[in-house]
Amino acid sequence: MVEGVHFRLQEGWATPAEVGHRALAGALSDIAAMGAEPGEAYLALGIPADFGEERALELVRAAGRLAASTGTMIAGGDVVASPALMVSVTAIGWADSAGDLVGRDGSQPGDIVGVTGRLGASGAALAVREGRAGRSPAAEQALAHCGGLTPRLPEGRAIAAAGIHAMVDLSDGVATDAGHLGRAGGVLLEVELAQLPLAPGVAEIAQELGVPAYELAAAGGEDYELCFCAAPGDRGAVEAAVAASGRTQVTWIGVVREGGPGVLLADERGDAVQLAGWEHVF
Amino acid sequence: MVEGVHFRLQEGWATPAEVGHRALAGALSDIAAMGAEPGEAYLALGIPADFGEERALELVRAAGRLAASTGTMIAGGDVVASPALMVSVTAIGWADSAGDLVGRDGSQPGDIVGVTGRLGASGAALAVREGRAGRSPAAEQALAHCGGLTPRLPEGRAIAAAGIHAMVDLSDGVATDAGHLGRAGGVLLEVELAQLPLAPGVAEIAQELGVPAYELAAAGGEDYELCFCAAPGDRGAVEAAVAASGRTQVTWIGVVREGGPGVLLADERGDAVQLAGWEHVF
Repeated sequence: MVEGVHFRLQEGWATPAEVGHRALAGALSDIAAMGAEPGEAYLALGIPADFGEERALELVRAAGRLAASTGTMIAGGDVVASPALMVSVTAIGWADSAGDLVGRDGSQPGDIVGVTGRLGASGAALAVREGRAGRSPAAEQALAHCGGLTPRLPEGRAIAAAGIHAMVDLSDGVATDAGHLGRAGGVLLEVELAQLPLAPGVAEIAQELGVPAYELAAAGGEDYELCFCAAPGDRGAVEAAVAASGRTQVTWIGVVREGGPGVLLADERGDAVQLAGWEHVF
Repeated sequence: MVEGVHFRLQEGWATPAEVGHRALAGALSDIAAMGAEPGEAYLALGIPADFGEERALELVRAAGRLAASTGTMIAGGDVVASPALMVSVTAIGWADSAGDLVGRDGSQPGDIVGVTGRLGASGAALAVREGRAGRSPAAEQALAHCGGLTPRLPEGRAIAAAGIHAMVDLSDGVATDAGHLGRAGGVLLEVELAQLPLAPGVAEIAQELGVPAYELAAAGGEDYELCFCAAPGDRGAVEAAVAASGRTQVTWIGVVREGGPGVLLADERGDAVQLAGWEHVF
């Protein structure tokens, strides 16, 4: 993650702690999406001359807290001078056997498409930080939801163990990431936009922006939730697996068909929808 | 490694291939210094908008060639946009047991201090690239020596197996890195500057610069050789271990004493020498 590209450090934007948390969370989210156990993480920091030791430590401590809470060991790293703040995280995940891991390929026609958690808070927060939406109670809800985002590691392992076919984490948004599953599996994921679960404040901010709420949920990105394809007969097992984590629930948002390959975003009438591209920066 | 900090991309400076080679070589050199086997490496690239795909591929292919020649598997990574070119390499090393690894601590009074290879070429090359030394045959020799630098992985494992006490790789130069061994071991490494083995062209360029050749060899850095402390009785075993690699030889450059902790650089009369700081950029 690079300053000015993935995050901004100006007043009102990312704090050093958020940068440290998100950089590690993003790497661990990929491990969650394979159903793997997190192991070691390595942090390489590029620090500008004027950044200062206190803010650098704030960044590293936030990564350390997330590591501790997820059973990840920060096992090494490096610190160098850099013209812009950058954080490179390499996280290693483990499984007892390759068969325990879930890839992006494997989705089959007839599968149902699920997601964990609630979506759109990062897109809503971006609109607030850019001043396109006001500092309303809804804005505070969305910002608070973003601040609590954590990789879905136990959920990812439980979902993988429930026998699903393919999984990806939602870093760019369903509109993009579900397309990865479709292309990897040679199938079409048809996502019903009206079914997308909305994070707190997202509906209100979408209304303020004059865009459909599903746009923030599908294209806002940076949700760190999981999207997966499962046989209809495994619906109950997947729901139970995620409920056992005690942190979130599954929402079923679509079905897999022959065709594509890729994703088809459908409105309530079943018509295909093209979404605006959203910048992913915090 | 960050553009403008660790390397420059202007005409006459580093090529993309050199950047890719050196970034992986630097990480593998640390593994060599522990006597470990290289395993996986992960490359995170930050690429400026104007860098172009061809140069990015040149960089990655050079890293791939070094990986193949050292038995390293490039197992993952990432590519992001960045205001300056940056390459972050995480390399993982392996050993059958922790006891097979060598740390920086462990040097003992009475030990002898050895290095592999020949030193100073990177310092000489920097002087040439900055125009402080001319494009003489000596300059071409030094530049060619730099271009062929490769991490001392088989030598590191062989030296570790010969029972040495402590080891470090020479990324900043003996003046700095031998100090790491001294401080980690709570001892004083006394290095005889006149004993430092010089890479081709270094003596001539030092004369042209009007500085002692040992300055380039001790402070120029970026040599990717190994420096280690061994019991005098293991001298022959260590020399044989390195000779068995067929690529280089050991030079004994000093002794370990009580005191310090740190390093003492001594001239031919045994007087302590302070060296100028050298920038480490290629």
